[in-house]
Amino acid sequence: MEITFLLIVEIIGTLAFAISGIRLAAVKRFDWFGAYIVGLVTAIGGGTIRDLFLSTTPFWMLNYWYLVVTAIALGLVIIFKRYLVRLDHTVFIFDTIGLALFVVIGMQKSIDFGFPMWVAIIMGTITGAFGGVLRDILINEEPLIFRKEVYATACIAGGLVYWLIAYCNGSTVVQQVACATIIIVVRVLSVVYNWSLPVMGNDSKKKN
Amino acid sequence: MEITFLLIVEIIGTLAFAISGIRLAAVKRFDWFGAYIVGLVTAIGGGTIRDLFLSTTPFWMLNYWYLVVTAIALGLVIIFKRYLVRLDHTVFIFDTIGLALFVVIGMQKSIDFGFPMWVAIIMGTITGAFGGVLRDILINEEPLIFRKEVYATACIAGGLVYWLIAYCNGSTVVQQVACATIIIVVRVLSVVYNWSLPVMGNDSKKKN
Amino acid sequence: MEITFLLIVEIIGTLAFAISGIRLAAVKRFDWFGAYIVGLVTAIGGGTIRDLFLSTTPFWMLNYWYLVVTAIALGLVIIFKRYLVRLDHTVFIFDTIGLALFVVIGMQKSIDFGFPMWVAIIMGTITGAFGGVLRDILINEEPLIFRKEVYATACIAGGLVYWLIAYCNGSTVVQQVACATIIIVVRVLSVVYNWSLPVMGNDSKKKN
Repeated sequence: MEITFLLIVEIIGTLAFAISGIRLAAVKRFDWFGAYIVGLVTAIGGGTIRDLFLSTTPFWMLNYWYLVVTAIALGLVIIFKRYLVRLDHTVFIFDTIGLALFVVIGMQKSIDFGFPMWVAIIMGTITGAFGGVLRDILINEEPLIFRKEVYATACIAGGLVYWLIAYCNGSTVVQQVACATIIIVVRVLSVVYNWSLPVMGNDSKKKN
Repeated sequence: MEITFLLIVEIIGTLAFAISGIRLAAVKRFDWFGAYIVGLVTAIGGGTIRDLFLSTTPFWMLNYWYLVVTAIALGLVIIFKRYLVRLDHTVFIFDTIGLALFVVIGMQKSIDFGFPMWVAIIMGTITGAFGGVLRDILINEEPLIFRKEVYATACIAGGLVYWLIAYCNGSTVVQQVACATIIIVVRVLSVVYNWSLPVMGNDSKKKN
Repeated sequence: MEITFLLIVEIIGTLAFAISGIRLAAVKRFDWFGAYIVGLVTAIGGGTIRDLFLSTTPFWMLNYWYLVVTAIALGLVIIFKRYLVRLDHTVFIFDTIGLALFVVIGMQKSIDFGFPMWVAIIMGTITGAFGGVLRDILINEEPLIFRKEVYATACIAGGLVYWLIAYCNGSTVVQQVACATIIIVVRVLSVVYNWSLPVMGNDSKKKN
């Protein structure tokens, strides 16, 4: 039952990530193949980097449904293009839930591989946030998460809560639920209240 | 004898891929070292990604002639720059033969590592087409294969034929020859008849 | 004692590499997180590529002080921004010493893993120079080392000296010191005398 629930959440998260990549590829007028690859890289790129760092086979080589879900995402964007814009809030919600789940998956896998918690936090953040960095490299843009949004920061905050609860001997389920909740809350609040991190390079202009 | 023939084809393919990378680096006015690296990445980048995904040592670390062939490609471009432009068709033919061979090599290696056919098709396509993606990232351009040409699509078509013949219990040699032939035919026809994949993002303008 | 000395040099080199990345991120007006990642990638990116190619766990996953040093670098750039400009020569010296050390570390690790000397030279060069390439990809610029500076060339020169001394049965310490010295000398001389490699693509304009 829990496996089924997690699987559904992972599918929805993969779908949301892939749609976000495909829509950016559409803005750049890539062809269908290019859009598919950009969507795929957005959805599985972070986990792929994580698995290379963990010296293990990339997860999507063991299960083809990530490719299928990305194909469905491509079909949805092609067919329902105009309606998707009106669904921006829905996509945002799914994207945020997917982000939270990806971080938890990345952290758990790193811990299972025997790495300490600080490595797990980095791997969780990479799993959640670095598919988007690869996406931005492929479409030849400066990575969005380095400039505009509280995104990776939410992952790190969730990872620290995971650590804190582990430190207090909380159960794994509590760690995971709390981590995911914090990520969703921080990300939603940051968009609602327009939070952002300080920008580099302002000082000289403001203070001089 | 077959090994010798395959080796010659692989050398020619590596040379053609490296020349294509070095010529693009020349357009960007990179220095000799930069052009060499761009040529090398074009030639061996796809196979390197494949080998990292297969959790094995990149093939070019076991045999230095890929580096030597790239150095020869650099010398050829520097010395015969003006003549190479007239040889565009020859370079295209070699590039296409190299592409077909690289896909076959990538598929065979994945199968030898015990992966299923759908992974082999992806690895073949990565071997053939993703050196060019890395090249375009290095020269800071949007990847060409995402916009203009039937290139990766030819690899996938060849891979599907490989699969089909394997499914029909055809011998390995027949699979490989048919796969390579399809790739060459699809790519040549796509250039002759100016085939391309549908582009994303047209719909709103055409249909509204 | 030697370990302590090497460790101090490695910390200083990491700090110098991270500062160079963070300053470029500041020019692009990345936020603090983005600047931290760019600094980190500059400092550890080359060694990470090397470790992936050597099929081993990236070195920074086994020791968290690389992350700490990069955080210190971020703090230094934020606090002492104006003064750092005046320290350009100091940063250059540290950067060059770090480069030399990183190449030696990369070569030694490859040899310890049983690879031949020509692979070690490539891995040393990757360790020293490719963090900067990843940095330039992240900030969406053409890689600097492909256009402007004698940088990777200095690494290769040092690597060849390492090889030569190994060939003449010189001790490991002599190999390492000579390699590092050559890199520092070549790099300093190249900046002082404004050396550069020939640029591709001049010929047609000059000779026609």
